[in-house]
Amino acid sequence: MADIRICFIGDSFTQGTGDDTCLGWPGRVCAAAQTRGHAVTAYNLGIRRETTGDIRARWRAEVTPRLAAGVDGRIVFSFGANDATIENGQWRVPPDLSAENARAMIARALLSYPVLVVGPPPAPEPEKTARHAELAARYATVCNELGVPFLDVMEPIGSVTAWWDEVAAGDGIHPGAQGYAALAGLVDAWPAWRSWLP
Amino acid sequence: MADIRICFIGDSFTQGTGDDTCLGWPGRVCAAAQTRGHAVTAYNLGIRRETTGDIRARWRAEVTPRLAAGVDGRIVFSFGANDATIENGQWRVPPDLSAENARAMIARALLSYPVLVVGPPPAPEPEKTARHAELAARYATVCNELGVPFLDVMEPIGSVTAWWDEVAAGDGIHPGAQGYAALAGLVDAWPAWRSWLP
Repeated sequence: MADIRICFIGDSFTQGTGDDTCLGWPGRVCAAAQTRGHAVTAYNLGIRRETTGDIRARWRAEVTPRLAAGVDGRIVFSFGANDATIENGQWRVPPDLSAENARAMIARALLSYPVLVVGPPPAPEPEKTARHAELAARYATVCNELGVPFLDVMEPIGSVTAWWDEVAAGDGIHPGAQGYAALAGLVDAWPAWRSWLP
Repeated sequence: MADIRICFIGDSFTQGTGDDTCLGWPGRVCAAAQTRGHAVTAYNLGIRRETTGDIRARWRAEVTPRLAAGVDGRIVFSFGANDATIENGQWRVPPDLSAENARAMIARALLSYPVLVVGPPPAPEPEKTARHAELAARYATVCNELGVPFLDVMEPIGSVTAWWDEVAAGDGIHPGAQGYAALAGLVDAWPAWRSWLP
């Protein structure tokens, strides 16, 4: 049986903030892979509040000891929501720089590992959702140019009632267990993911 | 509601290797705390094959962005099993150095965060279990001198039948979901842990 080790690198939505089960979507999709007979080691490297700039500064140092030489290592990136937060009237990371950060990380990761990218979810505020959509489109372009599969979750998550119920009942940003299960379901049904773990 | 963020720093037993649920014991004890009404962000920083020397080299860089200023951050260390592996006739990390690594990490962590330490589990081979027990005793002394709670799991895990059944059915080292649930049960019943998350 293959021994695949996956680093999930991102922000609070990757970490699973608000999920009472402490699985998040990475834990759920890897547990599902285990039930299909795969041996998967999941390293969840999501950090709350981090922008693409923050992630770019630390991802390589954290991946290196986890995906050591001889290991069948893979990387899943997911980021963007914190870049699109407005502070002092400006994006925390403007779209051009956000796309450049994404490109730099993905291109460098591809030198050593297979890579997948999952886009940011929508936000409760329409104008923030529009900023997430702008970033998702930028990341999709970057991924297309680099030949990396990109999963846009904006529309399918937008129609998940439980997501919004949980966001409203929670901290106003993050969903709970059902929302993360919905996100996991999208990833689990994604052909690119299934090509890693059939 | 308090917003506690905990870094679990250690090796494969911290990561949860072999656990089909992808929770490990850190995920289980934090999910249990969530059901008691606590808001806990669990950062699982266990890495397979790592010794105390490996962990000492990277833990601060990984904790810093996760437990940023203003965050109610805590640290749980758990290590030792890889130090006690014999390679070329020698411990990967001899007991004196292993204890010194533990002391250095714990003392430094205490400057900034509350700290708990969980000892290594027993191994299938009696002579490796004896080496784990020697390290557990060393770590207990270090923790006692630094005023940090230490949980010795050697004997209680030794009597968990499911642990050994799963080790035998798995890779010969790691348990499965039931074994990790037993380890989580020990941590969850530990007064030092409950003082953080009643």
